[in-house]
Amino acid sequence: MPPHGFRGVFPYLVSPVDAGGRVRAGVLRRLVGRLVKAGVHGLTPLGSTGEFAYLTEGQRRKIVEVTVDACAGRVPVVAGVASASTQDAVRQAKEYERMGADGILAIMETYFPVPPEGVESYFRGVARAVSCPVVLYTNPNFSRGDLTPGVIERLARVPNVRYLKDASSDTGRLLSVMNRVGGRLKIFSASAHIPLCVMLIGGVGWMAGPACLVPEQSVRLYELAAEKKWEEALPLQREMWRLNQAFAKYNLAACIKAGLEMQGLDVGPPLAPQAPLPREGRAEVRKVLKALGAL
Amino acid sequence: MPPHGFRGVFPYLVSPVDAGGRVRAGVLRRLVGRLVKAGVHGLTPLGSTGEFAYLTEGQRRKIVEVTVDACAGRVPVVAGVASASTQDAVRQAKEYERMGADGILAIMETYFPVPPEGVESYFRGVARAVSCPVVLYTNPNFSRGDLTPGVIERLARVPNVRYLKDASSDTGRLLSVMNRVGGRLKIFSASAHIPLCVMLIGGVGWMAGPACLVPEQSVRLYELAAEKKWEEALPLQREMWRLNQAFAKYNLAACIKAGLEMQGLDVGPPLAPQAPLPREGRAEVRKVLKALGAL
Amino acid sequence: MPPHGFRGVFPYLVSPVDAGGRVRAGVLRRLVGRLVKAGVHGLTPLGSTGEFAYLTEGQRRKIVEVTVDACAGRVPVVAGVASASTQDAVRQAKEYERMGADGILAIMETYFPVPPEGVESYFRGVARAVSCPVVLYTNPNFSRGDLTPGVIERLARVPNVRYLKDASSDTGRLLSVMNRVGGRLKIFSASAHIPLCVMLIGGVGWMAGPACLVPEQSVRLYELAAEKKWEEALPLQREMWRLNQAFAKYNLAACIKAGLEMQGLDVGPPLAPQAPLPREGRAEVRKVLKALGAL
Amino acid sequence: MPPHGFRGVFPYLVSPVDAGGRVRAGVLRRLVGRLVKAGVHGLTPLGSTGEFAYLTEGQRRKIVEVTVDACAGRVPVVAGVASASTQDAVRQAKEYERMGADGILAIMETYFPVPPEGVESYFRGVARAVSCPVVLYTNPNFSRGDLTPGVIERLARVPNVRYLKDASSDTGRLLSVMNRVGGRLKIFSASAHIPLCVMLIGGVGWMAGPACLVPEQSVRLYELAAEKKWEEALPLQREMWRLNQAFAKYNLAACIKAGLEMQGLDVGPPLAPQAPLPREGRAEVRKVLKALGAL
Repeated sequence: MPPHGFRGVFPYLVSPVDAGGRVRAGVLRRLVGRLVKAGVHGLTPLGSTGEFAYLTEGQRRKIVEVTVDACAGRVPVVAGVASASTQDAVRQAKEYERMGADGILAIMETYFPVPPEGVESYFRGVARAVSCPVVLYTNPNFSRGDLTPGVIERLARVPNVRYLKDASSDTGRLLSVMNRVGGRLKIFSASAHIPLCVMLIGGVGWMAGPACLVPEQSVRLYELAAEKKWEEALPLQREMWRLNQAFAKYNLAACIKAGLEMQGLDVGPPLAPQAPLPREGRAEVRKVLKALGAL
Repeated sequence: MPPHGFRGVFPYLVSPVDAGGRVRAGVLRRLVGRLVKAGVHGLTPLGSTGEFAYLTEGQRRKIVEVTVDACAGRVPVVAGVASASTQDAVRQAKEYERMGADGILAIMETYFPVPPEGVESYFRGVARAVSCPVVLYTNPNFSRGDLTPGVIERLARVPNVRYLKDASSDTGRLLSVMNRVGGRLKIFSASAHIPLCVMLIGGVGWMAGPACLVPEQSVRLYELAAEKKWEEALPLQREMWRLNQAFAKYNLAACIKAGLEMQGLDVGPPLAPQAPLPREGRAEVRKVLKALGAL
Repeated sequence: MPPHGFRGVFPYLVSPVDAGGRVRAGVLRRLVGRLVKAGVHGLTPLGSTGEFAYLTEGQRRKIVEVTVDACAGRVPVVAGVASASTQDAVRQAKEYERMGADGILAIMETYFPVPPEGVESYFRGVARAVSCPVVLYTNPNFSRGDLTPGVIERLARVPNVRYLKDASSDTGRLLSVMNRVGGRLKIFSASAHIPLCVMLIGGVGWMAGPACLVPEQSVRLYELAAEKKWEEALPLQREMWRLNQAFAKYNLAACIKAGLEMQGLDVGPPLAPQAPLPREGRAEVRKVLKALGAL
Repeated sequence: MPPHGFRGVFPYLVSPVDAGGRVRAGVLRRLVGRLVKAGVHGLTPLGSTGEFAYLTEGQRRKIVEVTVDACAGRVPVVAGVASASTQDAVRQAKEYERMGADGILAIMETYFPVPPEGVESYFRGVARAVSCPVVLYTNPNFSRGDLTPGVIERLARVPNVRYLKDASSDTGRLLSVMNRVGGRLKIFSASAHIPLCVMLIGGVGWMAGPACLVPEQSVRLYELAAEKKWEEALPLQREMWRLNQAFAKYNLAACIKAGLEMQGLDVGPPLAPQAPLPREGRAEVRKVLKALGAL
């Protein structure tokens, strides 16, 4: 792990799986290589764009294994751990750390609603299971177990809970969290927020699917923001936002996988019952990628 | 399978798992024995009360194996199949049928929202994978992929899609479905509906967690309804409803597991991060069980 | 008011208003006359089907005035009182009672979310303002101020709070309320519940828009239920439910107003921005009315 | 109206009403005087903080009359028009323009869900009724009739529809709208967004309740943003955000009214059934106001 901790652009990697259920290791390696070469600051396999919710235990393990191996320590790998069960999440976290992950992105899946105490105990359990840094992930739109401000404040006191990634789309929540926990938690933006705005209020980067498609542009945007060249960054942010618009409108994985195919990486369709990106979505993604010089 | 198809009371079995993650086969066998002896018409392992969302692939398999073996063909076993991925659900369904399940309760888990076509393809995939009857399960409160009337109508034409269990709490939806698909789909009530009402409008029984605790009373209620003795059934239904009230107020699995412990079956607590039933919930469940003569 | 209190079928009257904003008194009188002649047990102007949310203070007053006058004491008139403000609701309630209403249907509109204490104070304020019986109305689907079980229990102790109409579609809630407040509150069904089911568990009738279109059939269904002829009532209930299905699918007022026009009552379109019933909705309503012998 | 159109800080005025329902004109005048003197760029009576949903027709009219008179043309007055009914909204808009309002903030109240065509026709109706500029207001959290991107794009072509105020808390939506409609609609932030972020991406100011309490600080923040001194503005924004945090946590009107009382303006409590700010809320607001030098 870099001395300053995680920061910058961490693409959420897609998970290429063939019709027989096998992880396509070759194309995943090529994706990792391209992204690292483009200058991204880290890699995140098994995020939402990585379709963790559609993968078996074995497929998930293989994705992490290939990513860690292909990355070869050039940038940190922060692997997604996701379960509804604490016990199962702990098992995943231990396994991924042992396999070489530099950090854990902790996601709580839900079926029944989970009260704040349950949410806290889940994340605390995952953090305790590993010695590497943990990124808390919350997405109130897709989960019945949101991280409330009080829970975030208590979790921020756990030594290796160091980052928060919030996919709520409510940027004000991020500033509220910063006001409450000060520097104890660093904030990553999600694709539901405007990264430039999150950087302005003190964020340290973003973890998101679209960066798979426009890694150079993402790194450029990050550098402008890090240098506080807000005016210069805005036109690029505005243009890149069109990708997030398409991303929000269509299925996430379908969108990024289709774009990667256009760029020559045969990552295949999203896992059923998710459908491939429809024709008008493909046209939209193609247009945006061209405008950004990514096609 | 009985000649008239599935009907009557199908308790949703709890899943007893110890702290090390091992299925407690002994206590599950005793539960199965007690329920069959009480006259229930079928058994449903891996329903929502069965905490499917918190179990690993291996734990789920073991639960089905023990249930089928302990039941020994005395009543049909309808095993829950649940996944966000069609491929994984198909694998489960085939496996459980091969292991001896008499029917499949098909549940679609969701992470991203799923459009109607995706919902239809998921259930169609599961049905095609097996030759036994399939019960469609929908729960719009916990899922981002509800079965719409149009999808239900199309799925009702698949030969082995024979039943619907709807956990919406909206009893009018059931009558609307009956009005649309006539006799092609038979309807089971969930614990979110009043079983007596569902029987009045033409339902064939119920699949629900509370029947684990009051199997004799459930069978008695079913028989009164089947004989159309509505007046006689009402006081019993009214009293039994108090159990559903507690069930709806607290966590489902916590509630049933606590009640079974009171009845002498050491099924253990629900899986973390779910919490055991709190003190006031235990008092409430105890009171209702006593009033029903089940303690 | 009848000695046994309110019970039976209370149609929610539509509000005929012309393009200039004037209440069409003549057609409203004809509707009242027809319904009373058909045997309905009461009349409810300014319910949801009565588009209270789209009417000015003056239009609402006129609707109540015409209804009371045309009804001429033949059946009780229960007028809808709806506001976000307690003070305004109190004013309406006093005014409608003074104008001759026999009961008040109390509805709380919301803009900001209202906590349970606020909900209780609103309904308590309305009840205290009048001496006639009050029907509590709750619709958690359209309001951010639902009546919780605890609030209902406390309000049931107010002497003139005598009835509850719940439009939640969750019939189990009604049985839960009955289990909590016993006979202190009598329950009316809404069009979101199956009236026959509500009658089975102890309800006293229903207040709903569709009864405007099929008053004789509604009265017949009520009588069968009151005589506990459940089997005989079911085919009629099943057929009538198709009207509720259309009602739930399209805009409520548009649906009932279109049906009344088909029956020769020129009540006009719903108030903008609500749109008139589209062509396929008209065909659906026409078909159902014909099947029920109401056209 | 200023030549460059509306821009800057437009406080949402509270509505002081006494126990008898009379508008307290004196205190409203003092509030207007204080805000104009502090340098705010406009005034917005009858926004959400203005409790429009709790006021009668007469009270609303009086609020606009007093505001226009007290303001005396020193800054533009943009009056809130809110109704579920197009006809009623048109009446309000015409009346307020005739009374001297310089712009209309158009709000659509909802009871039944409204499809996009209905939403469009409502706002189009209001815009056509007046010749002054119209600010579209949308709040998907409190309304069942959100302005979709397609509707916004069509409404942006209506000549006097010139501004959008979006209270969704989703700042990315604002950038998406800008990407779609370019300069045709100017964007105002709401208290649910971080104003500094909205200014960074191209917004022209904010319309919000908290500016009643900290007008000088709001104007200072606006000026820093307008001069693109983002770094210098951030500490002030961060501190002011604490007020929005309190505002979001408690009832809006209760929060601002309590703060104004602390500052010596006797605006009274919010209208029932809204409750006055509880003790801990008062302490929180007091602390923030002191830290900002506003007490």
